[in-house]
Amino acid sequence: MKAKTSETHIDASNITAPTQFIKTKLETYAYRHLGAGDGAPLICLQHFTGTLDNWDPALVDALALEREVILFENAGVGRSTGEVPETMSGMAAHAIAFLDGIGLKEVDLLGYSLGGMVAQLIALERPSLVRKMLLVGTAPEGGEDIMHMEKPELNRILTDDKIQGLDKLVKLFFAPSQSSQAKGKAFTARLMQRKEDREPLSGPKVAGAQITAFRAWERITGERFANLRKITQPCFVVNGIFDNMIPVRNSYMLAEHLPNAMLLTYPDAGHGSLFQFHESFVKHASLFLDSE
Amino acid sequence: MKAKTSETHIDASNITAPTQFIKTKLETYAYRHLGAGDGAPLICLQHFTGTLDNWDPALVDALALEREVILFENAGVGRSTGEVPETMSGMAAHAIAFLDGIGLKEVDLLGYSLGGMVAQLIALERPSLVRKMLLVGTAPEGGEDIMHMEKPELNRILTDDKIQGLDKLVKLFFAPSQSSQAKGKAFTARLMQRKEDREPLSGPKVAGAQITAFRAWERITGERFANLRKITQPCFVVNGIFDNMIPVRNSYMLAEHLPNAMLLTYPDAGHGSLFQFHESFVKHASLFLDSE
Repeated sequence: MKAKTSETHIDASNITAPTQFIKTKLETYAYRHLGAGDGAPLICLQHFTGTLDNWDPALVDALALEREVILFENAGVGRSTGEVPETMSGMAAHAIAFLDGIGLKEVDLLGYSLGGMVAQLIALERPSLVRKMLLVGTAPEGGEDIMHMEKPELNRILTDDKIQGLDKLVKLFFAPSQSSQAKGKAFTARLMQRKEDREPLSGPKVAGAQITAFRAWERITGERFANLRKITQPCFVVNGIFDNMIPVRNSYMLAEHLPNAMLLTYPDAGHGSLFQFHESFVKHASLFLDSE
Repeated sequence: MKAKTSETHIDASNITAPTQFIKTKLETYAYRHLGAGDGAPLICLQHFTGTLDNWDPALVDALALEREVILFENAGVGRSTGEVPETMSGMAAHAIAFLDGIGLKEVDLLGYSLGGMVAQLIALERPSLVRKMLLVGTAPEGGEDIMHMEKPELNRILTDDKIQGLDKLVKLFFAPSQSSQAKGKAFTARLMQRKEDREPLSGPKVAGAQITAFRAWERITGERFANLRKITQPCFVVNGIFDNMIPVRNSYMLAEHLPNAMLLTYPDAGHGSLFQFHESFVKHASLFLDSE
Protein backbone atom coordinates (compact mmCIF):
# COMPACT_ATOMS: atom_id res chain seq x y z
CA MET A 1 0.00 0.00 0.00
CA LYS A 2 1.27 3.46 -0.83
CA ALA A 3 0.52 6.75 0.85
CA LYS A 4 -0.81 9.39 -1.56
CA THR A 5 2.41 11.29 -1.18
CA SER A 6 4.67 8.37 -1.82
CA GLU A 7 5.75 9.43 -5.28
CA THR A 8 6.89 12.85 -4.17
CA HIS A 9 9.21 13.19 -1.20
CA ILE A 10 10.60 9.81 -0.29
CA ASP A 11 14.02 9.72 1.25
CA ALA A 12 16.16 6.95 2.66
CA SER A 13 17.05 8.62 5.95
CA ASN A 14 15.67 10.72 8.76
CA ILE A 15 18.92 12.71 8.56
CA THR A 16 17.82 14.19 5.24
CA ALA A 17 14.12 13.41 4.65
CA PRO A 18 12.25 16.70 4.20
CA THR A 19 9.51 17.53 6.67
CA GLN A 20 6.23 17.46 4.79
CA PHE A 21 2.84 18.86 5.70
CA ILE A 22 -0.69 17.73 5.06
CA LYS A 23 -3.83 19.72 5.75
CA THR A 24 -6.68 17.54 7.03
CA LYS A 25 -10.18 18.07 8.36
CA LEU A 26 -8.69 18.57 11.84
CA GLU A 27 -5.21 20.14 11.62
CA THR A 28 -2.16 20.45 9.39
CA TYR A 29 0.33 17.78 10.42
CA ALA A 30 4.09 17.59 9.92
CA TYR A 31 5.51 14.23 8.91
CA ARG A 32 8.42 12.56 7.14
CA HIS A 33 8.34 9.70 4.69
CA LEU A 34 11.17 7.15 4.42
CA GLY A 35 11.75 4.09 2.29
CA ALA A 36 9.45 2.05 0.10
CA GLY A 37 7.84 -1.37 0.06
CA ASP A 38 4.73 -3.26 -0.94
CA GLY A 39 3.50 -4.12 2.55
CA ALA A 40 1.67 -2.02 5.08
CA PRO A 41 3.48 1.25 5.83
CA LEU A 42 4.87 1.56 9.36
CA ILE A 43 3.60 4.68 11.13
CA CYS A 44 5.83 5.90 13.97
CA LEU A 45 4.13 7.58 16.96
CA GLN A 46 6.50 9.53 19.17
CA HIS A 47 7.27 9.76 22.90
CA PHE A 48 6.63 12.47 25.50
CA THR A 49 7.68 15.89 24.09
CA GLY A 50 9.48 14.19 21.19
CA THR A 51 9.40 15.61 17.68
CA LEU A 52 10.24 14.12 14.29
CA ASP A 53 13.87 14.87 15.13
CA ASN A 54 13.78 12.41 18.04
CA TRP A 55 13.53 9.40 15.74
CA ASP A 56 16.94 7.72 15.71
CA PRO A 57 18.09 7.40 12.08
CA ALA A 58 19.86 4.13 12.98
CA LEU A 59 16.44 2.73 13.85
CA VAL A 60 14.02 4.21 11.34
CA ASP A 61 16.40 4.19 8.37
CA ALA A 62 17.03 0.47 8.92
CA LEU A 63 13.30 -0.23 9.24
CA ALA A 64 12.77 1.73 5.99
CA LEU A 65 15.09 -0.58 4.03
CA GLU A 66 12.22 -3.00 3.51
CA ARG A 67 9.07 -0.92 4.03
CA GLU A 68 7.51 2.53 3.90
CA VAL A 69 8.09 4.31 7.21
CA ILE A 70 6.13 7.44 8.06
CA LEU A 71 7.08 9.58 11.06
CA PHE A 72 4.03 11.45 12.34
CA GLU A 73 3.92 14.59 14.46
CA ASN A 74 0.77 14.94 16.54
CA ALA A 75 -1.23 18.19 16.94
CA GLY A 76 0.57 21.02 18.71
CA VAL A 77 3.99 19.33 18.55
CA GLY A 78 6.81 20.65 16.33
CA ARG A 79 5.27 22.33 13.29
CA SER A 80 1.93 20.49 13.45
CA THR A 81 -0.87 22.99 14.06
CA GLY A 82 -3.43 22.94 16.87
CA GLU A 83 -3.35 22.27 20.57
CA VAL A 84 -1.82 19.23 22.25
CA PRO A 85 -4.78 17.17 23.50
CA GLU A 86 -4.94 16.40 27.20
CA THR A 87 -6.17 12.86 26.50
CA MET A 88 -4.71 9.90 24.62
CA SER A 89 -7.98 9.54 22.69
CA GLY A 90 -7.64 13.15 21.52
CA MET A 91 -4.19 12.29 20.16
CA ALA A 92 -5.54 9.11 18.54
CA ALA A 93 -8.21 11.19 16.75
CA HIS A 94 -5.45 13.37 15.24
CA ALA A 95 -3.47 10.30 14.13
CA ILE A 96 -6.57 8.87 12.45
CA ALA A 97 -7.27 12.22 10.73
CA PHE A 98 -3.67 12.19 9.45
CA LEU A 99 -3.90 8.61 8.12
CA ASP A 100 -7.22 9.40 6.45
CA GLY A 101 -5.66 12.55 5.05
CA ILE A 102 -2.78 10.75 3.37
CA GLY A 103 -5.16 8.04 2.18
CA LEU A 104 -3.91 4.98 4.04
CA LYS A 105 -6.40 2.18 4.71
CA GLU A 106 -4.20 -0.31 6.59
CA VAL A 107 -0.97 0.38 8.41
CA ASP A 108 1.42 -1.05 10.99
CA LEU A 109 2.07 1.13 14.04
CA LEU A 110 5.28 1.65 15.98
CA GLY A 111 4.01 3.28 19.14
CA TYR A 112 6.79 4.33 21.47
CA SER A 113 5.98 5.35 25.07
CA LEU A 114 3.20 7.99 24.77
CA GLY A 115 2.88 6.87 21.15
CA GLY A 116 2.17 3.29 22.26
CA MET A 117 -0.84 4.47 24.23
CA VAL A 118 -2.08 6.42 21.22
CA ALA A 119 -1.53 3.30 19.09
CA GLN A 120 -3.73 1.17 21.37
CA LEU A 121 -6.55 3.70 21.03
CA ILE A 122 -6.21 3.86 17.24
CA ALA A 123 -6.62 0.06 17.18
CA LEU A 124 -9.70 0.30 19.40
CA GLU A 125 -11.23 3.26 17.59
CA ARG A 126 -10.61 2.07 14.00
CA PRO A 127 -9.58 -1.63 14.09
CA SER A 128 -9.60 -1.99 10.31
CA LEU A 129 -6.85 0.60 10.02
CA VAL A 130 -4.29 -1.39 12.03
CA ARG A 131 -2.62 -4.58 10.77
CA LYS A 132 0.08 -5.07 13.44
CA MET A 133 1.58 -3.01 16.26
CA LEU A 134 5.01 -2.59 17.82
CA LEU A 135 4.38 -1.28 21.35
CA VAL A 136 7.67 -0.11 22.85
CA GLY A 137 8.33 1.24 26.35
CA THR A 138 4.64 1.77 26.91
CA ALA A 139 1.74 0.82 29.19
CA PRO A 140 -1.90 -0.24 29.12
CA GLU A 141 -4.68 2.00 30.36
CA GLY A 142 -4.71 1.40 34.10
CA GLY A 143 -0.96 0.75 34.11
CA GLU A 144 1.38 1.68 36.96
CA ASP A 145 4.05 4.29 37.68
CA ILE A 146 3.73 5.90 34.24
CA MET A 147 5.94 8.93 33.61
CA HIS A 148 6.07 10.32 37.12
CA MET A 149 8.70 12.94 36.42
CA GLU A 150 8.46 14.03 40.06
CA LYS A 151 9.93 10.69 41.28
CA PRO A 152 13.31 11.31 42.93
CA GLU A 153 15.27 9.20 40.41
CA LEU A 154 13.79 11.15 37.46
CA ASN A 155 13.47 14.59 39.12
CA ARG A 156 17.15 14.45 40.11
CA ILE A 157 18.09 14.23 36.41
CA LEU A 158 15.61 16.90 35.28
CA THR A 159 16.74 19.46 37.87
CA ASP A 160 20.49 18.81 37.72
CA ASP A 161 22.02 21.91 36.05
CA LYS A 162 25.17 19.97 35.27
CA ILE A 163 23.18 17.74 32.89
CA GLN A 164 22.23 19.84 29.88
CA GLY A 165 20.23 19.36 26.70
CA LEU A 166 20.33 15.92 25.14
CA ASP A 167 22.45 14.60 28.00
CA LYS A 168 19.24 14.60 30.04
CA LEU A 169 17.81 12.17 27.48
CA VAL A 170 20.87 9.94 27.90
CA LYS A 171 20.29 9.78 31.66
CA LEU A 172 16.50 9.36 31.37
CA PHE A 173 16.33 6.83 28.51
CA PHE A 174 19.34 4.62 29.30
CA ALA A 175 20.35 2.41 32.22
CA PRO A 176 22.95 3.76 34.67
CA SER A 177 25.64 1.27 33.54
CA GLN A 178 28.65 2.54 31.59
CA SER A 179 27.68 0.35 28.65
CA SER A 180 24.13 1.70 28.43
CA GLN A 181 25.22 5.32 28.94
CA ALA A 182 27.76 4.96 26.10
CA LYS A 183 24.97 3.70 23.84
CA GLY A 184 22.92 6.72 24.95
CA LYS A 185 25.67 9.13 23.93
CA ALA A 186 25.87 7.44 20.54
CA PHE A 187 22.10 7.76 20.21
CA THR A 188 22.01 11.50 20.86
CA ALA A 189 24.97 12.02 18.50
CA ARG A 190 22.92 10.28 15.81
CA LEU A 191 19.95 12.57 16.53
CA MET A 192 22.19 15.59 15.86
CA GLN A 193 23.28 14.31 12.45
CA ARG A 194 20.26 16.06 10.96
CA LYS A 195 21.46 19.62 10.42
CA GLU A 196 18.63 21.35 8.53
CA ASP A 197 14.86 21.48 8.47
CA ARG A 198 14.65 20.59 12.15
CA GLU A 199 11.50 20.88 14.25
CA PRO A 200 11.14 23.41 17.07
CA LEU A 201 11.74 21.88 20.50
CA SER A 202 8.69 21.16 22.65
CA GLY A 203 8.07 23.60 25.50
CA PRO A 204 6.25 23.37 28.83
CA LYS A 205 2.85 23.63 27.14
CA VAL A 206 3.37 20.38 25.23
CA ALA A 207 4.79 18.68 28.32
CA GLY A 208 1.93 19.85 30.53
CA ALA A 209 -0.84 18.59 28.26
CA GLN A 210 0.90 15.25 27.72
CA ILE A 211 1.47 14.76 31.45
CA THR A 212 -2.25 15.42 32.00
CA ALA A 213 -2.94 12.67 29.47
CA PHE A 214 -0.55 10.28 31.25
CA ARG A 215 -2.32 10.88 34.57
CA ALA A 216 -5.69 10.06 33.01
CA TRP A 217 -4.23 6.94 31.32
CA GLU A 218 -3.08 5.59 34.68
CA ARG A 219 -6.59 5.59 36.10
CA ILE A 220 -8.50 2.32 36.22
CA THR A 221 -12.03 2.84 34.95
CA GLY A 222 -14.32 -0.18 34.85
CA GLU A 223 -12.86 -3.66 34.50
CA ARG A 224 -9.09 -3.39 34.40
CA PHE A 225 -7.51 -4.24 31.01
CA ALA A 226 -10.93 -4.92 29.43
CA ASN A 227 -9.94 -2.77 26.45
CA LEU A 228 -6.75 -4.77 25.87
CA ARG A 229 -8.79 -7.92 25.29
CA LYS A 230 -10.56 -6.17 22.40
CA ILE A 231 -7.30 -5.55 20.53
CA THR A 232 -6.93 -8.67 18.40
CA GLN A 233 -4.15 -7.47 16.11
CA PRO A 234 -0.75 -9.17 16.45
CA CYS A 235 1.38 -7.03 18.78
CA PHE A 236 5.08 -7.05 19.59
CA VAL A 237 5.70 -5.50 23.00
CA VAL A 238 9.28 -4.37 23.68
CA ASN A 239 10.95 -2.81 26.71
CA GLY A 240 14.22 -2.33 28.54
CA ILE A 241 14.28 -4.34 31.76
CA PHE A 242 15.36 -1.25 33.77
CA ASP A 243 12.91 1.33 32.39
CA ASN A 244 12.45 4.01 35.07
CA MET A 245 9.94 6.09 33.13
CA ILE A 246 7.44 3.32 32.32
CA PRO A 247 8.56 0.25 34.27
CA VAL A 248 8.71 -3.10 32.51
CA ARG A 249 5.82 -4.52 34.54
CA ASN A 250 3.56 -2.45 32.29
CA SER A 251 4.90 -4.43 29.35
CA TYR A 252 4.19 -7.66 31.25
CA MET A 253 0.58 -6.46 31.68
CA LEU A 254 0.31 -5.80 27.95
CA ALA A 255 1.68 -9.25 27.07
CA GLU A 256 -0.57 -10.96 29.62
CA HIS A 257 -3.82 -9.25 28.58
CA LEU A 258 -3.52 -8.51 24.88
CA PRO A 259 -4.83 -11.68 23.18
CA ASN A 260 -2.07 -11.81 20.58
CA ALA A 261 1.08 -10.15 21.88
CA MET A 262 4.66 -11.33 21.98
CA LEU A 263 6.95 -9.63 24.50
CA LEU A 264 10.66 -8.93 24.05
CA THR A 265 12.79 -7.36 26.78
CA TYR A 266 16.38 -6.16 26.62
CA PRO A 267 18.95 -6.36 29.45
CA ASP A 268 21.05 -3.42 30.67
CA ALA A 269 18.54 -1.04 29.08
CA GLY A 270 15.98 1.56 30.09
CA HIS A 271 13.19 3.39 28.29
CA GLY A 272 15.28 3.75 25.13
CA SER A 273 15.91 0.03 24.55
CA LEU A 274 14.92 0.32 20.87
CA PHE A 275 17.69 2.89 20.31
CA GLN A 276 20.26 1.08 22.47
CA PHE A 277 19.66 -2.23 20.66
CA HIS A 278 18.62 -0.78 17.31
CA GLU A 279 20.20 -3.55 15.23
CA SER A 280 18.63 -6.34 17.25
CA PHE A 281 15.31 -4.49 17.50
CA VAL A 282 15.10 -4.03 13.73
CA LYS A 283 15.81 -7.73 13.14
CA HIS A 284 13.33 -9.10 15.68
CA ALA A 285 10.66 -6.50 14.83
CA SER A 286 11.06 -7.24 11.11
CA LEU A 287 10.62 -10.98 11.78
CA PHE A 288 7.38 -10.10 13.57
CA LEU A 289 6.13 -7.68 10.91
CA ASP A 290 7.03 -10.03 8.05
CA SER A 291 5.56 -13.23 9.58
CA GLU A 292 2.24 -14.60 8.37
CA MET B 1 33.62 -26.89 16.66
CA LYS B 2 32.84 -30.54 16.05
CA ALA B 3 31.99 -33.22 18.54
CA LYS B 4 34.33 -36.22 18.36
CA THR B 5 31.54 -38.29 16.95
CA SER B 6 30.50 -35.81 14.30
CA GLU B 7 31.91 -37.74 11.37
CA THR B 8 30.03 -40.91 12.19
CA HIS B 9 26.29 -40.78 12.88
CA ILE B 10 24.94 -37.42 11.80
CA ASP B 11 21.38 -37.27 10.63
CA ALA B 12 19.10 -34.46 9.57
CA SER B 13 16.13 -35.35 11.73
CA ASN B 14 15.14 -36.59 15.16
CA ILE B 15 12.66 -38.86 13.36
CA THR B 16 15.53 -40.99 12.06
CA ALA B 17 18.75 -40.03 13.89
CA PRO B 18 20.15 -43.14 15.61
CA THR B 19 20.49 -43.08 19.36
CA GLN B 20 24.19 -43.15 20.17
CA PHE B 21 25.98 -43.97 23.40
CA ILE B 22 29.15 -42.71 24.99
CA LYS B 23 30.87 -44.17 28.03
CA THR B 24 32.33 -41.49 30.31
CA LYS B 25 34.02 -41.35 33.68
CA LEU B 26 30.57 -41.16 35.29
CA GLU B 27 28.00 -43.05 33.21
CA THR B 28 27.15 -44.16 29.70
CA TYR B 29 24.85 -41.58 28.14
CA ALA B 30 22.39 -41.87 25.28
CA TYR B 31 22.32 -38.99 22.80
CA ARG B 32 21.45 -38.05 19.23
CA HIS B 33 23.37 -35.90 16.83
CA LEU B 34 21.67 -33.74 14.18
CA GLY B 35 22.91 -31.36 11.54
CA ALA B 36 26.27 -29.69 10.99
CA GLY B 37 27.80 -26.25 11.20
CA ASP B 38 30.97 -24.38 12.08
CA GLY B 39 29.66 -22.59 15.19
CA ALA B 40 29.17 -23.85 18.71
CA PRO B 41 27.02 -26.99 18.82
CA LEU B 42 23.64 -26.58 20.51
CA ILE B 43 23.14 -29.06 23.36
CA CYS B 44 19.48 -29.75 24.21
CA LEU B 45 18.63 -30.50 27.85
CA GLN B 46 15.24 -32.10 28.34
CA HIS B 47 12.18 -31.49 30.53
CA PHE B 48 10.69 -33.44 33.47
CA THR B 49 10.51 -37.17 32.59
CA GLY B 50 11.22 -36.39 28.93
CA THR B 51 13.49 -38.60 26.82
CA LEU B 52 15.23 -38.05 23.49
CA ASP B 53 11.89 -38.91 21.88
CA ASN B 54 10.27 -35.82 23.43
CA TRP B 55 12.25 -33.42 21.24
CA ASP B 56 9.86 -32.15 18.56
CA PRO B 57 11.43 -32.81 15.15
CA ALA B 58 9.81 -29.61 13.82
CA LEU B 59 11.91 -27.71 16.36
CA VAL B 60 15.25 -29.52 16.53
CA ASP B 61 15.43 -30.44 12.83
CA ALA B 62 14.94 -26.77 11.92
CA LEU B 63 17.58 -25.66 14.43
CA ALA B 64 19.94 -28.27 12.94
CA LEU B 65 19.70 -26.75 9.45
CA GLU B 66 22.42 -24.25 10.39
CA ARG B 67 24.23 -25.85 13.33
CA GLU B 68 25.16 -29.06 15.10
CA VAL B 69 22.39 -30.05 17.51
CA ILE B 70 23.02 -32.70 20.16
CA LEU B 71 20.13 -34.11 22.20
CA PHE B 72 21.41 -35.34 25.56
CA GLU B 73 19.79 -37.86 27.91
CA ASN B 74 20.76 -37.42 31.55
CA ALA B 75 21.68 -40.28 33.92
CA GLY B 76 18.90 -42.75 34.68
CA VAL B 77 16.62 -41.47 31.90
CA GLY B 78 15.87 -43.53 28.77
CA ARG B 79 18.86 -45.74 28.03
CA SER B 80 21.42 -43.63 29.91
CA THR B 81 22.88 -45.64 32.78
CA GLY B 82 22.95 -44.67 36.45
CA GLU B 83 20.51 -43.14 38.89
CA VAL B 84 18.52 -39.95 38.34
CA PRO B 85 20.10 -37.38 40.70
CA GLU B 86 17.85 -35.74 43.25
CA THR B 87 19.55 -32.37 42.71
CA MET B 88 19.97 -30.11 39.69
CA SER B 89 23.71 -29.90 40.39
CA GLY B 90 23.91 -33.69 40.20
CA MET B 91 22.30 -33.52 36.75
CA ALA B 92 24.67 -30.73 35.72
CA ALA B 93 27.65 -32.91 36.70
CA HIS B 94 26.38 -35.62 34.33
CA ALA B 95 25.92 -33.11 31.50
CA ILE B 96 29.48 -31.84 32.01
CA ALA B 97 30.81 -35.43 32.04
CA PHE B 98 28.97 -36.03 28.76
CA LEU B 99 30.35 -32.87 27.11
CA ASP B 100 33.87 -33.73 28.29
CA GLY B 101 33.32 -37.25 27.01
CA ILE B 102 32.44 -36.17 23.47
CA GLY B 103 35.26 -33.62 23.56
CA LEU B 104 33.38 -30.33 23.32
CA LYS B 105 35.08 -27.24 24.78
CA GLU B 106 32.42 -24.59 24.06
CA VAL B 107 28.72 -25.12 23.41
CA ASP B 108 25.37 -23.35 23.32
CA LEU B 109 22.67 -24.79 25.58
CA LEU B 110 18.95 -25.12 24.98
CA GLY B 111 17.67 -25.83 28.48
CA TYR B 112 13.96 -26.54 28.55
CA SER B 113 12.08 -26.58 31.89
CA LEU B 114 14.12 -28.95 34.15
CA GLY B 115 16.86 -28.70 31.50
CA GLY B 116 16.99 -24.92 31.91
CA MET B 117 17.81 -25.31 35.58
CA VAL B 118 20.56 -27.80 34.72
CA ALA B 119 21.84 -25.34 32.08
CA GLN B 120 22.17 -22.53 34.65
CA LEU B 121 24.25 -24.79 36.87
CA ILE B 122 26.50 -25.88 33.99
CA ALA B 123 27.19 -22.19 33.30
CA LEU B 124 28.00 -21.60 36.98
CA GLU B 125 30.08 -24.76 37.42
CA ARG B 126 32.08 -24.53 34.15
CA PRO B 127 31.58 -21.04 32.63
CA SER B 128 34.15 -21.58 29.87
CA LEU B 129 32.04 -24.42 28.48
CA VAL B 130 28.99 -22.25 27.75
CA ARG B 131 28.87 -19.62 24.98
CA LYS B 132 25.12 -18.75 24.98
CA MET B 133 21.97 -20.20 26.50
CA LEU B 134 18.35 -20.56 25.45
CA LEU B 135 16.35 -20.92 28.69
CA VAL B 136 12.80 -22.00 27.88
CA GLY B 137 9.88 -22.53 30.28
CA THR B 138 12.22 -22.57 33.22
CA ALA B 139 12.97 -20.83 36.53
CA PRO B 140 15.81 -19.49 38.62
CA GLU B 141 16.88 -21.11 41.88
CA GLY B 142 14.47 -19.62 44.42
CA GLY B 143 11.73 -19.34 41.80
CA GLU B 144 8.02 -19.76 42.51
CA ASP B 145 5.32 -22.37 41.89
CA ILE B 146 7.68 -24.72 40.05
CA MET B 147 6.16 -28.00 38.86
CA HIS B 148 3.64 -28.53 41.61
CA MET B 149 1.89 -31.47 40.00
CA GLU B 150 -0.42 -31.65 43.02
CA LYS B 151 -2.03 -28.26 42.12
CA PRO B 152 -5.71 -28.77 41.21
CA GLU B 153 -5.31 -27.54 37.62
CA LEU B 154 -2.44 -29.99 36.96
CA ASN B 155 -3.60 -32.86 39.16
CA ARG B 156 -6.99 -32.88 37.43
CA ILE B 157 -5.23 -33.63 34.13
CA LEU B 158 -2.87 -36.23 35.59
CA THR B 159 -5.64 -38.20 37.31
CA ASP B 160 -8.30 -37.98 34.57
CA ASP B 161 -8.61 -41.50 33.12
CA LYS B 162 -10.29 -40.11 30.01
CA ILE B 163 -7.03 -38.33 29.09
CA GLN B 164 -4.52 -40.99 28.08
CA GLY B 165 -0.88 -41.08 27.00
CA LEU B 166 0.38 -38.15 25.02
CA ASP B 167 -2.98 -36.39 25.35
CA LYS B 168 -1.93 -35.59 28.91
CA LEU B 169 1.05 -33.73 27.45
CA VAL B 170 -1.31 -31.74 25.21
CA LYS B 171 -3.33 -30.64 28.23
CA LEU B 172 -0.28 -29.94 30.41
CA PHE B 173 1.96 -28.16 27.88
CA PHE B 174 -0.60 -26.12 25.93
CA ALA B 175 -3.07 -23.39 26.80
CA PRO B 176 -6.76 -24.34 27.15
CA SER B 177 -7.79 -22.44 23.99
CA GLN B 178 -8.85 -24.43 20.93
CA SER B 179 -5.99 -22.92 18.93
CA SER B 180 -3.33 -23.95 21.44
CA GLN B 181 -4.82 -27.42 21.95
CA ALA B 182 -4.81 -28.00 18.17
CA LYS B 183 -1.11 -27.07 18.10
CA GLY B 184 -0.60 -29.52 20.96
CA LYS B 185 -2.19 -32.36 19.01
CA ALA B 186 0.04 -31.56 16.04
CA PHE B 187 3.05 -31.59 18.38
CA THR B 188 2.34 -35.04 19.80
CA ALA B 189 1.65 -36.39 16.30
CA ARG B 190 5.12 -35.16 15.31
CA LEU B 191 6.64 -36.92 18.33
CA MET B 192 5.13 -40.22 17.11
CA GLN B 193 6.69 -39.90 13.64
CA ARG B 194 9.77 -41.65 14.99
CA LYS B 195 8.90 -45.34 14.69
CA GLU B 196 12.10 -47.19 15.61
CA ASP B 197 14.95 -46.98 18.08
CA ARG B 198 12.76 -45.21 20.63
CA GLU B 199 13.71 -44.70 24.26
CA PRO B 200 11.88 -46.45 27.12
CA LEU B 201 9.32 -44.21 28.82
CA SER B 202 10.23 -42.71 32.17
CA GLY B 203 8.60 -44.33 35.20
CA PRO B 204 7.79 -43.13 38.72
CA LYS B 205 11.43 -43.49 39.82
CA VAL B 206 12.57 -40.84 37.32
CA ALA B 207 9.62 -38.59 38.19
CA GLY B 208 10.20 -38.92 41.93
CA ALA B 209 13.87 -37.99 41.82
CA GLN B 210 13.25 -35.05 39.49
CA ILE B 211 10.40 -33.73 41.66
CA THR B 212 12.75 -33.88 44.66
CA ALA B 213 15.20 -31.77 42.64
CA PHE B 214 12.45 -29.25 41.77
CA ARG B 215 11.53 -28.88 45.46
CA ALA B 216 15.14 -28.16 46.37
CA TRP B 217 15.44 -25.68 43.46
CA GLU B 218 12.50 -23.68 44.77
CA ARG B 219 14.19 -23.00 48.10
CA ILE B 220 15.83 -19.64 48.64
CA THR B 221 19.25 -20.12 50.22
CA GLY B 222 21.31 -17.01 50.94
CA GLU B 223 20.77 -13.87 48.86
CA ARG B 224 17.99 -14.51 46.38
CA PHE B 225 19.12 -14.66 42.73
CA ALA B 226 22.79 -14.07 43.68
CA ASN B 227 23.81 -16.95 41.41
CA LEU B 228 22.01 -15.45 38.42
CA ARG B 229 24.18 -12.37 38.61
CA LYS B 230 27.26 -14.57 38.13
CA ILE B 231 26.00 -15.92 34.79
CA THR B 232 27.42 -13.45 32.28
CA GLN B 233 26.74 -15.42 29.11
CA PRO B 234 24.14 -14.00 26.71
CA CYS B 235 20.82 -15.71 27.47
CA PHE B 236 17.53 -15.83 25.60
CA VAL B 237 14.67 -16.59 28.00
CA VAL B 238 11.43 -17.84 26.39
CA ASN B 239 8.05 -18.77 27.82
CA GLY B 240 4.37 -19.09 27.08
CA ILE B 241 2.39 -16.39 28.86
CA PHE B 242 -0.03 -19.00 30.31
CA ASP B 243 2.47 -21.58 31.57
CA ASN B 244 0.77 -23.50 34.43
CA MET B 245 3.74 -25.74 35.20
CA ILE B 246 6.40 -23.03 35.61
CA PRO B 247 4.56 -19.69 35.52
CA VAL B 248 5.92 -16.88 33.37
CA ARG B 249 6.88 -14.77 36.38
CA ASN B 250 9.85 -17.10 36.77
CA SER B 251 10.98 -16.01 33.31
CA TYR B 252 10.55 -12.37 34.36
CA MET B 253 12.85 -13.10 37.33
CA LEU B 254 15.45 -14.61 35.01
CA ALA B 255 15.33 -11.60 32.65
CA GLU B 256 15.48 -9.14 35.55
CA HIS B 257 18.43 -10.73 37.37
CA LEU B 258 20.59 -12.36 34.70
CA PRO B 259 22.96 -9.58 33.60
CA ASN B 260 22.66 -10.34 29.88
CA ALA B 261 19.29 -11.92 29.12
CA MET B 262 16.66 -11.10 26.56
CA LEU B 263 13.13 -12.34 27.25
CA LEU B 264 10.60 -13.47 24.66
CA THR B 265 7.06 -14.54 25.58
CA TYR B 266 4.37 -16.06 23.39
CA PRO B 267 0.61 -15.43 23.64
CA ASP B 268 -2.04 -18.17 23.84
CA ALA B 269 0.66 -20.62 24.94
CA GLY B 270 1.67 -22.65 27.97
CA HIS B 271 4.77 -24.59 28.97
CA GLY B 272 5.26 -25.88 25.42
CA SER B 273 5.52 -22.50 23.69
CA LEU B 274 8.65 -23.55 21.80
CA PHE B 275 6.72 -26.43 20.19
CA GLN B 276 3.53 -24.41 19.59
CA PHE B 277 5.48 -21.59 17.91
CA HIS B 278 8.33 -23.70 16.56
CA GLU B 279 8.79 -21.66 13.37
CA SER B 280 8.89 -18.34 15.18
CA PHE B 281 11.02 -19.76 17.99
CA VAL B 282 13.62 -21.09 15.55
CA LYS B 283 13.82 -17.71 13.77
CA HIS B 284 14.12 -15.55 16.90
CA ALA B 285 16.44 -18.02 18.67
CA SER B 286 18.66 -18.23 15.57
CA LEU B 287 18.90 -14.42 15.45
CA PHE B 288 20.05 -14.53 19.06
CA LEU B 289 22.51 -17.39 18.56
CA ASP B 290 23.95 -15.89 15.37
CA SER B 291 24.31 -12.30 16.67
CA GLU B 292 27.73 -10.95 17.68
